[in-house]
Amino acid sequence: MFKKLLISWLILPVSLIFAQQDDEKFIRRIYDEALLNGRAYDMLEYLCIRIGPRLSGSPGAAAAVEYTRQSMQHLGFDSVWLQPVMVPHWVRGTPEIGRIVHSRKLGMQPVNICALGGSVGTGPAGVVAGVVEVRSWEELKKLGEQGRVKGKIVFFNRPMDASQLQTFAAYGAAVTQRANGASEAARYGAVAALVRSVSPNPEDYPHTGALSYALNIPKIPAAAIATRHADLLSRLLADDPDLQFYLEMHCQTLPDAPSFNVIGELRGTEKPGEYLVVGGHLDSWDLGQGAHDDGAGCVQAIEALRILKALGYRPRHTLRAVMFMNEENGLRGGQEYARQAARKNEKHLVAIESDRGGLVPRGFTVPADSEARAKVQGWKPLLQPYGLHDFDTQGGGADIGPLASQGTHLMGLLPDSQRYFSYHHTAEDTFDKVDRRELALGAAAMAAMLYLIDKHGLK
Amino acid sequence: MFKKLLISWLILPVSLIFAQQDDEKFIRRIYDEALLNGRAYDMLEYLCIRIGPRLSGSPGAAAAVEYTRQSMQHLGFDSVWLQPVMVPHWVRGTPEIGRIVHSRKLGMQPVNICALGGSVGTGPAGVVAGVVEVRSWEELKKLGEQGRVKGKIVFFNRPMDASQLQTFAAYGAAVTQRANGASEAARYGAVAALVRSVSPNPEDYPHTGALSYALNIPKIPAAAIATRHADLLSRLLADDPDLQFYLEMHCQTLPDAPSFNVIGELRGTEKPGEYLVVGGHLDSWDLGQGAHDDGAGCVQAIEALRILKALGYRPRHTLRAVMFMNEENGLRGGQEYARQAARKNEKHLVAIESDRGGLVPRGFTVPADSEARAKVQGWKPLLQPYGLHDFDTQGGGADIGPLASQGTHLMGLLPDSQRYFSYHHTAEDTFDKVDRRELALGAAAMAAMLYLIDKHGLK
Repeated sequence: MFKKLLISWLILPVSLIFAQQDDEKFIRRIYDEALLNGRAYDMLEYLCIRIGPRLSGSPGAAAAVEYTRQSMQHLGFDSVWLQPVMVPHWVRGTPEIGRIVHSRKLGMQPVNICALGGSVGTGPAGVVAGVVEVRSWEELKKLGEQGRVKGKIVFFNRPMDASQLQTFAAYGAAVTQRANGASEAARYGAVAALVRSVSPNPEDYPHTGALSYALNIPKIPAAAIATRHADLLSRLLADDPDLQFYLEMHCQTLPDAPSFNVIGELRGTEKPGEYLVVGGHLDSWDLGQGAHDDGAGCVQAIEALRILKALGYRPRHTLRAVMFMNEENGLRGGQEYARQAARKNEKHLVAIESDRGGLVPRGFTVPADSEARAKVQGWKPLLQPYGLHDFDTQGGGADIGPLASQGTHLMGLLPDSQRYFSYHHTAEDTFDKVDRRELALGAAAMAAMLYLIDKHGLK
Repeated sequence: MFKKLLISWLILPVSLIFAQQDDEKFIRRIYDEALLNGRAYDMLEYLCIRIGPRLSGSPGAAAAVEYTRQSMQHLGFDSVWLQPVMVPHWVRGTPEIGRIVHSRKLGMQPVNICALGGSVGTGPAGVVAGVVEVRSWEELKKLGEQGRVKGKIVFFNRPMDASQLQTFAAYGAAVTQRANGASEAARYGAVAALVRSVSPNPEDYPHTGALSYALNIPKIPAAAIATRHADLLSRLLADDPDLQFYLEMHCQTLPDAPSFNVIGELRGTEKPGEYLVVGGHLDSWDLGQGAHDDGAGCVQAIEALRILKALGYRPRHTLRAVMFMNEENGLRGGQEYARQAARKNEKHLVAIESDRGGLVPRGFTVPADSEARAKVQGWKPLLQPYGLHDFDTQGGGADIGPLASQGTHLMGLLPDSQRYFSYHHTAEDTFDKVDRRELALGAAAMAAMLYLIDKHGLK
């Protein structure tokens, strides 16, 4: 026994060194496969150019379900199937019209707006009303209590803070206007809400995104306005507080529609009942092509499994690529996936989402659990040669969030975020904004992380 | 005396802490100015959209000289002037034609090519000849010595290594074919050279770039071929080694033309005769708009000085923004700048070039001198909050290279390089490929580095 202990003590460091060399070599092979034979970019081209936007319930979303199902089947994954889920079905209808009318300075002035996802329409007659500009909830409350909001369009014009280097934090601070502005304005009798697009840049195009109506408050129409036009409207209001705004929106919510999460897996050799998930969301907003948000994450998830399969890797646990449906306006896919996992008693060790754009990766968000986090951070030396150095932020992604209560560790791919909000939820989120190498590097990073967790576990 | 020493010993750490807090605060102000009131993006828009390509000797280059001169004057720099320099004047002429002719498999097949900068033309009758593919100098030598190159078009088809994470290193390893291929092929009697575009991606568009003819070797026409078409030609050659290629190029070299470096400066308050330079090159290739290469570097250099001026910073040394002319095909501007600096006995402490694209910055290349390098690396904690963490690579930039012999420390802005070679020297290098924030962050990084060097020196 003592001899055995001695031997294991002697050989342990050597075997550890070998293990690390093995990891180094295998991760290098992952990157070679991604960069020399990668398929993510071509899949994304199909999803964006041939299919296009994929809002939940749309024919585009159905096409994307079928395309990704076929793609994973064609790649020879061990099993590929559809997980049914009913999704909200909101349609934008004919394009919105937004106009400043009767401004003393400019007369009639068209501005670029788009309905927020989930908004009610204005009816064919549109809404015309005076405008009250606010930059904070406090300001809204004050004006509302003074009776100055009633019958007006509330214009939420607090900018996203461009000086913040952490763009997602700046987004988080500004997006509440978009999410809750309509109902907060309606509490004081507003007839519509106009929200400054959540972007750090001066732009001519609006950013859509979901709103959430509060219970028992009248639902009023809400639109995003391009940042440059928000600035213009603000200047004109200063000159002429009585100017009127005309808003016409033909959007409506139809009955829930049938749709699917798309799941592909490589079966585990040792622990097939334990799961490692990589995923993105297949639905997108309707204005662009959902290239960065989140076609990129979907094809990276498929590609991560393809790479491991192409290298002949036999996973210990079952690896799954999941294309979640309906992240943008309901999260029904993520909720259904977690519900089915619990129902079937599938132990999900970790879920890694890519939903921050197909941009050059800088690291991963890491599990909240300190032991698992330390384990991930310990792999930094293996990943740093590939530009991955940020393993500090905790968090996962919206779609995998519902798995948290099952004890699943949540992680996310962390690309550079500086240009993400130039595209986010706009007509600019198109395939040409994605770089082949940057997309491939993200897929390789996810494959490498899957490999390390599969091989070494998270504790 | 002892008391004085004791006091200075006691207060030193405190003053150091205050100094660091000052630096932190001032750098935060630099980034606020760049991100909230930045002008780099609008200047680049003018340079790219209103002016367009700016090859040395072209009317576009002259317009860019005048535009940047006016811009710096308008910004109120202490002095702005033009430094005359004669530059090579190469023109592409009417578009090139490249065709695979009489391939057994495909018949006639047009392919996308472009003349390499500095190449002779083919004459109006073009060149038609058989093709010899090589992937190394050894292969060329072997075939040449066997007499199999004479009368042929040599097709240099060694790919840029897409698996390398260091894209500039991969570029360096592949670009020798472009730079020297024509003359090396001509040594063995080749009639033209066709060079695989130096890009890691499968693409339909060719990448131009300068060639260099060796002395006393016949000058033969040389063109770059798009990577996808290089792959096609290679496959067709395998099927039919006797296929012919038709090449028509109308480029020519005209007599040298008068041009200028454009220089703007903020005069130093303590050491006006010592200079800190930031710069980029104003000339660009003729195919795109020279947005990343190197309009970005020029406007970042101007913006770096504008930011410091806007913040009321009074520099100790004289700060200069230099738009160098003719980096792409001659380096005459960089050489002339260094010559004049030496002639006027201007002590140039440091020169920092931005010529790796207007992409999200990750750090700086650092001086070769170990003391100066350590000083720069010591500022890392101040710059890391802004995404700058790479201070490991030594080097400067082509234009500032000639200053090295005067003891000037050379540095460069180091943006993320993964997508740079998707645009480099192509029709794709256009304004829409540059992100406002990423460009601004580069300018802020340069302003911050200027500030730190101006305040603390490099030794």
